Amino acid sequence: MTREKLKIGMFGYGCVGQGLHDVLNSSKGFKADIVKICVKDPNKKRRIPMSNFTFDKNDILNDPSINLVVELIDDPVAAFNIVTTAMKKGKNVVTANKVMLAKHFKQLVEMQDKYKVSLLYEASAGASIPIIRNLEEYYDNELLYSLRGILNGTTNYILTLMHNNAIDFNIALEEARAKGFAESDPTLDIEGWDAKYKLCIITGHAYGLFLDPEEVFHYGIKTISKFDIRYAREKGFKIKLVPFVGKTNENTITSFVLPRFISSDKYLYNVDYEYNGVITEAAFADKQFFSGKGAGGHATGSAVLSDISANSYGYRYEYKKYQQGTVSDYTRDYKLEVYLRYSKEKDRDLFKFEEISEFFSSASYKYVIGIINLQTLYALRKKIQGLDVFIVNTGRKGINT
Amino acid sequence: MTREKLKIGMFGYGCVGQGLHDVLNSSKGFKADIVKICVKDPNKKRRIPMSNFTFDKNDILNDPSINLVVELIDDPVAAFNIVTTAMKKGKNVVTANKVMLAKHFKQLVEMQDKYKVSLLYEASAGASIPIIRNLEEYYDNELLYSLRGILNGTTNYILTLMHNNAIDFNIALEEARAKGFAESDPTLDIEGWDAKYKLCIITGHAYGLFLDPEEVFHYGIKTISKFDIRYAREKGFKIKLVPFVGKTNENTITSFVLPRFISSDKYLYNVDYEYNGVITEAAFADKQFFSGKGAGGHATGSAVLSDISANSYGYRYEYKKYQQGTVSDYTRDYKLEVYLRYSKEKDRDLFKFEEISEFFSSASYKYVIGIINLQTLYALRKKIQGLDVFIVNTGRKGINT
Repeated sequence: MTREKLKIGMFGYGCVGQGLHDVLNSSKGFKADIVKICVKDPNKKRRIPMSNFTFDKNDILNDPSINLVVELIDDPVAAFNIVTTAMKKGKNVVTANKVMLAKHFKQLVEMQDKYKVSLLYEASAGASIPIIRNLEEYYDNELLYSLRGILNGTTNYILTLMHNNAIDFNIALEEARAKGFAESDPTLDIEGWDAKYKLCIITGHAYGLFLDPEEVFHYGIKTISKFDIRYAREKGFKIKLVPFVGKTNENTITSFVLPRFISSDKYLYNVDYEYNGVITEAAFADKQFFSGKGAGGHATGSAVLSDISANSYGYRYEYKKYQQGTVSDYTRDYKLEVYLRYSKEKDRDLFKFEEISEFFSSASYKYVIGIINLQTLYALRKKIQGLDVFIVNTGRKGINT
Repeated sequence: MTREKLKIGMFGYGCVGQGLHDVLNSSKGFKADIVKICVKDPNKKRRIPMSNFTFDKNDILNDPSINLVVELIDDPVAAFNIVTTAMKKGKNVVTANKVMLAKHFKQLVEMQDKYKVSLLYEASAGASIPIIRNLEEYYDNELLYSLRGILNGTTNYILTLMHNNAIDFNIALEEARAKGFAESDPTLDIEGWDAKYKLCIITGHAYGLFLDPEEVFHYGIKTISKFDIRYAREKGFKIKLVPFVGKTNENTITSFVLPRFISSDKYLYNVDYEYNGVITEAAFADKQFFSGKGAGGHATGSAVLSDISANSYGYRYEYKKYQQGTVSDYTRDYKLEVYLRYSKEKDRDLFKFEEISEFFSSASYKYVIGIINLQTLYALRKKIQGLDVFIVNTGRKGINT
């Protein structure tokens, strides 16, 4: 086993950075030196000596002895600057920044080729679950029908609390914040952006398409009410936020992020709190399920460590599905059965239901279950944000046959 | 992406061989020629032209144009002969033969080094679940506390039928046979040998110890009765056959195969029929779960294909945990809480219960729940086979603390 000696320059020392530090210190089989850690705030108290830190990114980027940059900061713009500068200087990079990756995916793939460097980012989707590596390596010749799952720990934590304790969204959000599972600004999570960015990264490895996230419909859970949870419970369901990507024909895929009803005989039903879970359906391997912690410094740190370790023996993503080029088209012309809870008829009419199978009306709330087209949802994506509605994918199969 | 052109010589054309043939024919991104298939019976009808077949193994082993041997026959002795001959001739090998692997594990690892060839066998444990590759690559620096799961599709199919339909073992076994999920001689499956061989292979990659299977205690389900199933149902459990390997201290592991009670909030509870599932617990990644089909030609064929594909870009297992050498000892001095259903007091006494927490007696059956030592079970391993008892690991934690 010949491994390159790694000299690491790290950016960021938050939750994941500290988790990684712990993980690295406890990993017997593998030694890598963290030469320098670049952080923003010189006045913040740190739990390790100040001599480990720098406040100037060039101390890392211009240090020729550093051969691996590990980028773990929040700001996607600054991260993009750091990552691309490092790549141009011939340094390999490990990152967990899904916003940056999803927004510049194609460019970052091309830069790896151009500058002969490796960019690894297993922690960016599904945290500790090795989904990217498996899609890239293990299923590289599989006919993958679809992939769906729970990719956002914050919303899953909130939904679990709402389901178990019959509490309001805002109270659940507060509790998630108190436990460290929601940011002070949780917009990215609760509106479904985070799940969408992860879905776009996964799509690149599952199907070889590097989608502009703007092209993909997403919807979150910020308008979920106790009525929705009660409805789900009565039917034996839980509501989970489930990103989906799948084939509509041999060379075309669709994708979206929507809440979904999950019945108790399904794997995702037991994926609670900060856990994530991914289901793949493929021609030969059939249905597979992967689950693990989707948030937290140690779980994410373990995925980052695995990328660092892979770097030490020269591993690079080959983007095999992209090379194969089997999937070339993306569509939003896709029928979905949804539950729509609403209060005004004119709001309901916006969704252009093609078929209605259930309808309920009471003093406190109304809902309808029927078939709509993803195109309609996409066209409404901005308008929906202001409506007093909640949408759930029923997950009924066979609609698009 | 530079890939070696593969010329494959295949041994066996049963369920997995035909499944692989289907999978290969449908894999767009990847072409490999199956040059020749060696089979035993010249008179058996085949679904492809006879010109594809040979009945002389040397037609493959002595053909210098063949650079990959795919071994998919049942007989472990013949398989060992084929695999080692191929390796000595410098050919890479892919196999799914867990009996052969487990019995000659160390030797086969050493031969890869000696003859500079690659031996891959993802399909040998957990069929389509990429557990070996993930243990080898992804968790190579993780502090793995334990691994357990369902690794035998036949017994899981039988247990699922017994649980759902409240039928006898023999009737369930017949139905599993009729559906193609049990061999005409199911001994290897129902006595737990198959699960143990797979556990030993996994142990090599999880902890770097190549155990002699004779050293590992195994127990199957052939004496399970309707009483046991009824007891489990009343308590909200299912009974599953669960191999376990885990650390007892920093450099020591233990392992065994035993039926286990699984409650409905556990992932393994929903792993039914021919599905397999694996749970890992690690210091930083925490608890993870992988599930997929554990039997069937296509599911197994997809794992074999993934190994073939990995071969095309020069992939080899590095046995990283073995190289690290952190785990050096194996112990059977390990306390377990078990449920023992029995009829004779003298049988019960054999198990030397250290502590008893429950006891039940009726005209039709008796059981006791208490703590025993794995050493005692191992010492009784031959005697147990003839006793009218059934043993289930309750899975209660904290006994060995």
